[in-house]
Amino acid sequence: MEFQVTVLGSNSAAPAHGRNQTAQVVQMGAHVFLVDCGEGTQHQLRRYKVKFSKVNHIFISHLHGDHYLGLMGIISTFHLNNRKQPLWVYGPKGLDEIITLQLKYAHTLLRFPIHFVQTTPNSKNEILDLPELKVSSFPLLHRIPCTGFLFEEKSRPKKLIKEKIKSLGNDVEAIRSLANGKDVKDETGKIKYAVETYCYPGMPPRKYAFCSDTIYHPEIIAYIQEVDLLYHESTFMQEELIRAEQTFHSTASQAATIARDAGAKQLLLGHYSTRYADLYPLLWEAKQIFEPTLLSEEGNTYIIH
Amino acid sequence: MEFQVTVLGSNSAAPAHGRNQTAQVVQMGAHVFLVDCGEGTQHQLRRYKVKFSKVNHIFISHLHGDHYLGLMGIISTFHLNNRKQPLWVYGPKGLDEIITLQLKYAHTLLRFPIHFVQTTPNSKNEILDLPELKVSSFPLLHRIPCTGFLFEEKSRPKKLIKEKIKSLGNDVEAIRSLANGKDVKDETGKIKYAVETYCYPGMPPRKYAFCSDTIYHPEIIAYIQEVDLLYHESTFMQEELIRAEQTFHSTASQAATIARDAGAKQLLLGHYSTRYADLYPLLWEAKQIFEPTLLSEEGNTYIIH
Repeated sequence: MEFQVTVLGSNSAAPAHGRNQTAQVVQMGAHVFLVDCGEGTQHQLRRYKVKFSKVNHIFISHLHGDHYLGLMGIISTFHLNNRKQPLWVYGPKGLDEIITLQLKYAHTLLRFPIHFVQTTPNSKNEILDLPELKVSSFPLLHRIPCTGFLFEEKSRPKKLIKEKIKSLGNDVEAIRSLANGKDVKDETGKIKYAVETYCYPGMPPRKYAFCSDTIYHPEIIAYIQEVDLLYHESTFMQEELIRAEQTFHSTASQAATIARDAGAKQLLLGHYSTRYADLYPLLWEAKQIFEPTLLSEEGNTYIIH
Repeated sequence: MEFQVTVLGSNSAAPAHGRNQTAQVVQMGAHVFLVDCGEGTQHQLRRYKVKFSKVNHIFISHLHGDHYLGLMGIISTFHLNNRKQPLWVYGPKGLDEIITLQLKYAHTLLRFPIHFVQTTPNSKNEILDLPELKVSSFPLLHRIPCTGFLFEEKSRPKKLIKEKIKSLGNDVEAIRSLANGKDVKDETGKIKYAVETYCYPGMPPRKYAFCSDTIYHPEIIAYIQEVDLLYHESTFMQEELIRAEQTFHSTASQAATIARDAGAKQLLLGHYSTRYADLYPLLWEAKQIFEPTLLSEEGNTYIIH
């Protein structure tokens, strides 16, 4: 299954230096998820050729404008595009009310149903369960209720051992079963071909965690253990630590510390303060603590292998 | 006094063909007014180097998203920029409630006061009165309550007749008074120097009318008589007349008919349907009825002479 993150916006607060506000597309197989929707997200979706019709689930971390003001425009455009299929919107208390009020004054009766799923900022909760993946929200610590999101693959297809498979000849059904990680049994229920004989040991399922807008908060480590890719905001550099604490944001060093302590494989920085036109110093700062750090840059896609 | 209109967005409904949603900057002397605020207006203000701090009055025609979804982002950015001076927002019932609800869930206590002025969609009303200009709202006919806005200069400085002024020598005070259109009187109150003797006949004060989103509605002509520049939406061409009527929009021909019948000096088309990548046919259609028609194009400034 393809598993990748495309960054649509990387700046905090207001757009600056050609950088937009937070928004990401998380693609898992055929599923296209939108994570946070700063103003202008629909422009960015067009720019990076993301098909609107594929988005069925939108996740909003919190109700600061730079993380959700683009949602209403996307909903309007879905409506204008004659969308019929339902949309699920996950976000904190209040989001439902804001969208419903705007639809009321626009006299808009949407052509498709929206299911609002309210996130809770106190505990980890599974909010989406599909056959091949699940998504959970978990608490972050910000000035207002705010959650991160954890995207988890349920299992990964097995890699067949070619030489052993040869002995099965053309038994396509058996081979498919083994590839899906299922032993093949005979009529009596006895194992005929065991997965562990015909397949390489399985790779662990992949995980992506999105931590948008939080003060340095080691309690989140429990929720993001050993993720393959961690997006963690890094609004400031360490020299602005006091400002970071005052505004409930993190520094690049703190993001890197969280990534290291959670055993993440890679770290993606973002939500940069407008004071940084050049982002390299943030990257450098984080790499001192956690080497496999990347800068999130708009239009770039980060593949989770 | 400088009097000009800069177009920030010209597309209807959703952004397309590199065109944004409705937003304009109307500059009258030192005053910078924002008229409608489609999503991404703050991006456009930056792109065209309009100083945020100069905007003290924002006019919203109606509560369809493509005309106001950028307002909350602008208010947030004002707040982040430490704005102190008050902001006046003019718009229909509901706008106050929408903004207030969003501020509530963001836990934002603005650093500057907002004064909401509710427009009424039934009659013409003067909503802003400044020493040198006034602004009125007037009813349009759309699917939801919607008003246009009329920007009027109060008077224009007189042009002095140089040869006659010579006879006044260095009487700077008298000359200034005449230039401002005021007769100079002696101690007994008798006219000493009459404006009509020392000045050329006055030019009439200039007017700009903004008609956003309306079905063809000749009743608006009474409100926009002899404007120097008329912006009138032209979502469709005449071949889509039925669609225009169904959606309470106008065709280019209809916009031109309104301009002609109102005795406007120039017409500015806009709010183009996404179906038109090439806008020339709309211009051509309008020009058959009203020759001095212009296409509104983003980033362009239209000077009212």
